Amino acid sequence: MSDSKGTVVLAYSGGLDTSCILVWLKEQGYDVIAYLANIGQVENFEEARKKALDLGARKVYIEDLRQEFVEKYIWLAIQANAIYEDRYLLGTALARPCIAQKQVEIAQKEGAHYVSHGATGKGNDQIRFELSCYALCPQIKIIAPWRMPEFYTRFRGRGDLMEYAKKHGIPVPVTPKSPWSMDENIMHISYEAGILENPKNPAPPGLYTKTKDPATSPDVPDILEIEFKKGVPVKVTNVKDASTHLSSLELFVYLNEMAGKHGVGRIDIVENRFIGMKSRGIYETLAGTILYHAHLDIEAFTMDREVRKIKQGLALKFSELVYNGFWYSPECAYIRHCICKSQELVEGKVQLSVFKGQVSILGRESPQSLYNKELVSV
Amino acid sequence: MSDSKGTVVLAYSGGLDTSCILVWLKEQGYDVIAYLANIGQVENFEEARKKALDLGARKVYIEDLRQEFVEKYIWLAIQANAIYEDRYLLGTALARPCIAQKQVEIAQKEGAHYVSHGATGKGNDQIRFELSCYALCPQIKIIAPWRMPEFYTRFRGRGDLMEYAKKHGIPVPVTPKSPWSMDENIMHISYEAGILENPKNPAPPGLYTKTKDPATSPDVPDILEIEFKKGVPVKVTNVKDASTHLSSLELFVYLNEMAGKHGVGRIDIVENRFIGMKSRGIYETLAGTILYHAHLDIEAFTMDREVRKIKQGLALKFSELVYNGFWYSPECAYIRHCICKSQELVEGKVQLSVFKGQVSILGRESPQSLYNKELVSV
Amino acid sequence: MSDSKGTVVLAYSGGLDTSCILVWLKEQGYDVIAYLANIGQVENFEEARKKALDLGARKVYIEDLRQEFVEKYIWLAIQANAIYEDRYLLGTALARPCIAQKQVEIAQKEGAHYVSHGATGKGNDQIRFELSCYALCPQIKIIAPWRMPEFYTRFRGRGDLMEYAKKHGIPVPVTPKSPWSMDENIMHISYEAGILENPKNPAPPGLYTKTKDPATSPDVPDILEIEFKKGVPVKVTNVKDASTHLSSLELFVYLNEMAGKHGVGRIDIVENRFIGMKSRGIYETLAGTILYHAHLDIEAFTMDREVRKIKQGLALKFSELVYNGFWYSPECAYIRHCICKSQELVEGKVQLSVFKGQVSILGRESPQSLYNKELVSV
Amino acid sequence: MSDSKGTVVLAYSGGLDTSCILVWLKEQGYDVIAYLANIGQVENFEEARKKALDLGARKVYIEDLRQEFVEKYIWLAIQANAIYEDRYLLGTALARPCIAQKQVEIAQKEGAHYVSHGATGKGNDQIRFELSCYALCPQIKIIAPWRMPEFYTRFRGRGDLMEYAKKHGIPVPVTPKSPWSMDENIMHISYEAGILENPKNPAPPGLYTKTKDPATSPDVPDILEIEFKKGVPVKVTNVKDASTHLSSLELFVYLNEMAGKHGVGRIDIVENRFIGMKSRGIYETLAGTILYHAHLDIEAFTMDREVRKIKQGLALKFSELVYNGFWYSPECAYIRHCICKSQELVEGKVQLSVFKGQVSILGRESPQSLYNKELVSV
Repeated sequence: MSDSKGTVVLAYSGGLDTSCILVWLKEQGYDVIAYLANIGQVENFEEARKKALDLGARKVYIEDLRQEFVEKYIWLAIQANAIYEDRYLLGTALARPCIAQKQVEIAQKEGAHYVSHGATGKGNDQIRFELSCYALCPQIKIIAPWRMPEFYTRFRGRGDLMEYAKKHGIPVPVTPKSPWSMDENIMHISYEAGILENPKNPAPPGLYTKTKDPATSPDVPDILEIEFKKGVPVKVTNVKDASTHLSSLELFVYLNEMAGKHGVGRIDIVENRFIGMKSRGIYETLAGTILYHAHLDIEAFTMDREVRKIKQGLALKFSELVYNGFWYSPECAYIRHCICKSQELVEGKVQLSVFKGQVSILGRESPQSLYNKELVSV
Repeated sequence: MSDSKGTVVLAYSGGLDTSCILVWLKEQGYDVIAYLANIGQVENFEEARKKALDLGARKVYIEDLRQEFVEKYIWLAIQANAIYEDRYLLGTALARPCIAQKQVEIAQKEGAHYVSHGATGKGNDQIRFELSCYALCPQIKIIAPWRMPEFYTRFRGRGDLMEYAKKHGIPVPVTPKSPWSMDENIMHISYEAGILENPKNPAPPGLYTKTKDPATSPDVPDILEIEFKKGVPVKVTNVKDASTHLSSLELFVYLNEMAGKHGVGRIDIVENRFIGMKSRGIYETLAGTILYHAHLDIEAFTMDREVRKIKQGLALKFSELVYNGFWYSPECAYIRHCICKSQELVEGKVQLSVFKGQVSILGRESPQSLYNKELVSV
Repeated sequence: MSDSKGTVVLAYSGGLDTSCILVWLKEQGYDVIAYLANIGQVENFEEARKKALDLGARKVYIEDLRQEFVEKYIWLAIQANAIYEDRYLLGTALARPCIAQKQVEIAQKEGAHYVSHGATGKGNDQIRFELSCYALCPQIKIIAPWRMPEFYTRFRGRGDLMEYAKKHGIPVPVTPKSPWSMDENIMHISYEAGILENPKNPAPPGLYTKTKDPATSPDVPDILEIEFKKGVPVKVTNVKDASTHLSSLELFVYLNEMAGKHGVGRIDIVENRFIGMKSRGIYETLAGTILYHAHLDIEAFTMDREVRKIKQGLALKFSELVYNGFWYSPECAYIRHCICKSQELVEGKVQLSVFKGQVSILGRESPQSLYNKELVSV
Repeated sequence: MSDSKGTVVLAYSGGLDTSCILVWLKEQGYDVIAYLANIGQVENFEEARKKALDLGARKVYIEDLRQEFVEKYIWLAIQANAIYEDRYLLGTALARPCIAQKQVEIAQKEGAHYVSHGATGKGNDQIRFELSCYALCPQIKIIAPWRMPEFYTRFRGRGDLMEYAKKHGIPVPVTPKSPWSMDENIMHISYEAGILENPKNPAPPGLYTKTKDPATSPDVPDILEIEFKKGVPVKVTNVKDASTHLSSLELFVYLNEMAGKHGVGRIDIVENRFIGMKSRGIYETLAGTILYHAHLDIEAFTMDREVRKIKQGLALKFSELVYNGFWYSPECAYIRHCICKSQELVEGKVQLSVFKGQVSILGRESPQSLYNKELVSV
């Protein structure tokens, strides 16, 4: 190990790309620590651990960040009504700083000078990841193989990766690659690239994996009551079966279930990436969609109009910062403080139905309401 | 007529309130010209004309403003993606300056020094109406009976109006008053007040008049292609039956029909009125909802990201100005100019489905697209 | 006292107008408590106390609010770099909520249901005063004689006031009224109306009372070093004589002296009043002008660029709110919190000269500086 | 010439750096066309032409851009009240797109595929220059020697340049290099770097080259009347000697003379550069400072308050875009259009004095004034 170039903490997914990167990093002379964040994606974590160790990782970290992701990242987005370019609820963007923060923490604990990731050189994720790492640890060094000529000229396509895998004993996926790329976490899943790149082509049947098609979803709505304190959901009640869900993670998972059952949260958009190009993305955001609507409603009900306008301006900026990867920047820290401050009185219950792809607000009540029935009546 | 206090142009609806106001104005010594704007509401205009004449109106103007309303007001809102407090598409607010502008025109043509309306003293509409009139004709005098003690102390409730009606030969409505108030035009209908005032109570079954309940709407979507030029829809094609709709009014009416058939456009919100109080409103916005989504999509597809951000800021202000009745203010004129300017390259076709209350974007194409498939692909 | 309409706390200046109002209020059947705020204006307070008692005031409060005014109001404006329409440093606007807050406090302590003031019906001050009172005590009742027909039709000009004064034993000013109106406090003095109303006419010679004419001010500058902590000045040192000034009030008075000596702080502007009209104002803002420049400099030196931009947007809104009298509104409270938060690292020393009407920054240093000499050098 | 790598249009200043670059480019195998823009700096253009030809330039372009710079760039900044971070009037930033635009035009005319410049790798100017070039001609290739390792590792300091100069017959400056760098044009001069880099050190005596020291400037002011049409100055009259100045270039030069005579336009600031670092700059902006104050005044006098607020927001963004080099971006084109639109009624005359470093507004008049003397008077 004396000849090692040093230790690198690699954000490892278990898939073909990062498995090849793991081996390639070792080939370059690095010690590799594999790091796998559980942010709610479907994954066989133990199998991935074994695979990483088999490929020569010195150590494997599997970190369950789901609760942290919900409470420290998603809740702020809900408080902000964060939405990028009027439509995207930022599911992927919110996860990056959460993942990066733990990766930097591991690097610091392990004395590693390097972190590495498998993000491509044209996407937002490389930027979100790297800005987070640099903000948290300015002296960290980042190895981004897909931007390094010695890597990308060697691996010009999937074929090269497959060949390299075979040669180095990396297990090759048996199922064919899906004709688009996906990114999943507890908040959402994205579908991009491949045959989806032509923005004119509709999403093919069978693309969506987390929500029922509204055409075949149940013919009877679920009615939910969501209770907020300081702009954050603290309790979800299903009015029909009277089941209640209290902790942040539990209620979020339950809302995911409800949204999935009723086909809530699909969108197909073209968005402007940080590095300038336009990109087509198809997303499913489940609980996030329900909570976006519910929070908008309780906030409008309890917040002073003029405070709301100011906060709305800040939230616009917040959404842009999050999309572009600036979660850990000074300006985002400042805005996060200001947004939290605005939520002190955002408290109450919202009733809504989920049905056939739609969230419909039915009513709301609050101990903090600024609504005055006497005033408003004719 | 020598003893007349002068001529007043009254915005007349044919209903109990403005009929009483018509007679009351004559009682006060004014000559009354009744003015009834056709902005797409369901109404028997000829019956209303006859009624106004019977009650003593010197003249009756019935003006079909539907095309003007669509082209000069609604189209700008579509170009702006105008939305108040993130949810309300401004259906009522957009109609006021359109109605007022013609009323002032009639007053000027008739040499009338007064205009009058039946709006209450707590709502937004009095303000929208009056700001428009003053902006267009600063010397006009406005008679707002519901803010005049000599009127509102005499008519303390519907009972007083009914009694007055009977005494003065004003036809009394035979159907009981609905337990909420409604305002309708070609863009939307609102339901407010009465039993809806308690924001906790859901909309009662049967309230909605323009959209099918998604629970009973067709089980098969309609697929529409909407073509835009300079940010304005110029053609709607139903992909299934290949029917096309070209003129502004025709395509708008067709989209209303499609939205109504599939239950698109219902919302239930609490909003902040201009004069400060919070108010609960339930709305159906049909074609407006489809076009809001379609325009968002084609704009995101064709507009430079940074131009979009600036335009988004202007549109936020525009929405607020329209809501508050400042359509004819200098700042709104300025913003309208800037928004139009931003739309020069917003051109192309959006495919979408309407189904079970939802508008879902399926794809888009444009000769002006800034989308670059080569660039975006990995 | 059983026949009294109640007690009114009158903002009393000792001048002709409010003396007449005091007597007139008694005439109308009110008990009057005179309240005179010392916010740094030139005034014989004891004479005013005697006068008020002579005129029948039941009680007189003379409150020294200078320190409170500096620390709770002016310091926030300095932190915000508050400036209205790019030029006006808000000297009068900042004083109103300070004065009103104490007046409401006195009313509450004395069980008075009324407060009264002598502001005219066209200015900003009536609004600033009244919005503050209502925000602090929504049930308070305000008596604004200059907006009441029974008062303003009786007192149509200064002649009527003089006559009334003579009749009621109110001491009549012996010096002729100045040909413009003035408002003074520790932060600034304003000159408006009268012969200044024509915006084309230059300020007449001799108008300025607090600053030397730069043409005759000293030919040698004073060099000052101002130290800031959390965006607030905590120490002023005169570099030449090494005198230091530490407490908020003391250093503010000292900066007033320096600015006055060197002719710093004069402006002549046309501004937009809250109620819509444009108005010409001439101002002298002494210490406020020095601190505006010094704070801009230390803030630029220590604050992150992007945080600064966000804060700049908030400060623009803050300035508008303060100008319009909304200091005690929820949105202003929110913005004040956010502005304070932005100042945590605004710390350091600024050297500047005051000379011939100008404040010139000479240099700055800070333990918190984000300035990096290594980085910047070529 | 068949072996040439192609033709490069070099922004040539006649100084040591760009002379070495010229020779170095030839050494690398390029044909070099020297381009020297006259934007009002003090320069012996004919000597520079000869020098460039002597050093092997194939052709030399000397372009007098002064009028274009004033009318197409500076006038827009005046209309916008453009100011970066509340203090910097953008003198250097405005010149870059003007210079670049002509350079690209020459490259296109000459069929050159390359443009080159001598800006350093840490400043704003490289970015302003390059963004302009790419926006105007996306396929142009930029050679920036100071960012190329083969250049900057060879020329590690002034010593290396001197040696190279001697070796290649490049005339070596006889006067020692000033202890700071300067950039000059008709609008301003900047002093940066070198001994000025420590932000604590005051500007040394004798630094300023364009303005008199207020301590020794005349003891009698000049009184000027500046007339605006559509927000642009069209006539300057010296009230004392009745001299008038009408064309854009002539009046701008005259205002420069007046400002210089009276010491107007010096500032010493720390600003945030585009690439993130803070930088200390000392500037003299002469006519620009006078016009900034005069335009602010006539605009406030003639523009609707609410339009002004919207325009102010746009101008803030405009200033940032100009500072960062985005003059030719789509968003800046859009904002420039909107700002121009806002100026349609900004018309009238402002009287002001220039004296001892200060511009003092004395009065204003306008045929378009929204000022209403009747309304405002008490």
